[in-house]
Formats: sequence, C-alpha cells, structure tokens
Amino acid sequence: MTGTLTAEPLTREAFAPFGDVIEAQGEPSFMINGGRCGRYDDLARPRTVDEDGHVSLSVAQSDPAVFPMTLDLMERHPLGSQAFVPIEGARLLVTVAPDAGGKPGEPRAFLSNGKQGIQYKPNTWHGVLAPLSGPSAFLIVDRIGGGGNLEEYIFQTPYTVLT
Amino acid sequence: MTGTLTAEPLTREAFAPFGDVIEAQGEPSFMINGGRCGRYDDLARPRTVDEDGHVSLSVAQSDPAVFPMTLDLMERHPLGSQAFVPIEGARLLVTVAPDAGGKPGEPRAFLSNGKQGIQYKPNTWHGVLAPLSGPSAFLIVDRIGGGGNLEEYIFQTPYTVLT
Repeated sequence: MTGTLTAEPLTREAFAPFGDVIEAQGEPSFMINGGRCGRYDDLARPRTVDEDGHVSLSVAQSDPAVFPMTLDLMERHPLGSQAFVPIEGARLLVTVAPDAGGKPGEPRAFLSNGKQGIQYKPNTWHGVLAPLSGPSAFLIVDRIGGGGNLEEYIFQTPYTVLT
Repeated sequence: MTGTLTAEPLTREAFAPFGDVIEAQGEPSFMINGGRCGRYDDLARPRTVDEDGHVSLSVAQSDPAVFPMTLDLMERHPLGSQAFVPIEGARLLVTVAPDAGGKPGEPRAFLSNGKQGIQYKPNTWHGVLAPLSGPSAFLIVDRIGGGGNLEEYIFQTPYTVLT
C-alpha cells in the first residue's frame, strides 16, 4: 500500500464500474431545434432504491479542493444514485472505490475535462466533491428523503491523490 | 399585439408560474464537505405524469441562437417536467407562455446569468433552447418513454425577442 493515487482521464469505459459519465461525446443520438442542437440521449438514469425518497435537483456552491488532495474519507448512499454536473465549467477530481466486504477497496481517481458530469450508482464508495477551481457551482441530482442513506469510512492511512 | 418581447432577468419569483430556477442564491440550505461547500437543497423535482416514462439525464450540444431571436414556435410536454442546466456557464434566453385554451397566451422572456438552470413544469409552453453563446453543452433532465409527450404551436405572427 503506497498511500498515493494518480488520477486518470475520466472516460465512460473506465468509469463504468462506478456509474455514468454525462457528456457530449462522439455523434449525438439525434438532432433537435431544427438541426442547431445535438442531443446525447439517456446518458444516466437517476434512481431511488426505496419508495420513500424522491429524485431532486440541488446546487452545490463549492470552494476548490486543496491540492495535493488527501483522500481520508469515502462515503456511499445505499438508497439512490447521485450525480454531479458542473454549471460553470469547472473540472472535477472524482475518487471512487469498489466495495470490499463493506468498506472501500483500492480507490481510483479520475479527472474530468470541464465538460463532463458523473453519476454514481447507488451504494458506490466515493470521495467528496473536489473541483479544481472555484468557487464554482454544481448541479446535484440525488435522492432526498428519510432513512439511512449515508455510510462513511475513514482510512487509517490516507491517500495522496496526484493529478 | 406588438410582435416584440423584451427579456427580463431570470428570478425564482418571476419564473414561478412556469417552473423552477436552479441556482445557488442567498444562503445555502446547509453546509457539506467539512464546511467547504454549501448545498442549496431540493430546488426542483423532476417528475413524470404517467407510469410509462422515466426521468433521465441527457446532454444537448447547441449552437448559439441567432439574435435578435425570432419566437415563431412554442412546445410543451404533457407527460413530464423538463430541466436545462448549463454545463459550461452559458447564458440562456428562456421563453415561456401561460396556456390560453390549448395554445400559448402572451409569451414572456427571461435571461439567465450563466449560473442558473431552469425546470419547466409539465405541460408548460416554452420556446426552444436558446444559448447566447456557444457551441455550449447543457444538461437536460426530462422524461424519456413512449406516448405523446410533445405538442407544438406555430405563431401566425412571430415575436422578436429583445435582450
């Protein structure tokens, strides 16, 4: 265990085990608005696992993360997906991990290009929102409702994330 | 009927008859991420009217509108809400109208500040996506599914929208 982690470019393929990348990539699904606008359709489906919550849109106004970033805590939300999309073009450092017996396994880090959002699958371990610049606003699409929708895990040996 | 329409600033209060403004405005609902990030919670709830569709995230990659903009067509979606949020900070010219017996009444135009998204209520008359600059990407949060979810109306006398 080295304690360091190097960010890789955020791509749909690399991120697929953890969720979806929300971006205009390649050819659009179809054109709208008289051909002036391409629609990349159905990139991610927000969802709640239970019946007690609802999907809602919120905004996060965040200071930039402090770099080099220390990854000392991960969290997950058992009851719903969670998406973050930049409103003002900020790049994001996204940290995720597979589950390993109820705690995060070896984490991975992804760096977005400023035109990408991400959606975590329900119950996927991830670090906190880490914009590279700011203050900057992000749209959050997630479950709001009662019930236990947060688990946290603190690493005994934090990781340093290299970008 | 003058045929011209002047855009007003996009605010929650003014836009309320038509839907929600999605923005970090005033004090946050609560802080997250160790106080580094304010969350403006539950600003808009995407919804489907029927059981056959689902809410999904898509991206629109749009050229800018041609200005002065001619408003010659409005549309509405009876089966679900529809939200547009800029990913790269573009300003939006938003046109909406109350219903007047199955067609659009007197339209109104709103100009966003580049840090705002909007969500139309189901069945609300609106013009097409009109970014002031571009090409630029927008997140769409709307209903995807079968059934008739589009009505269009063409104005015999188009409006010129002044910004």
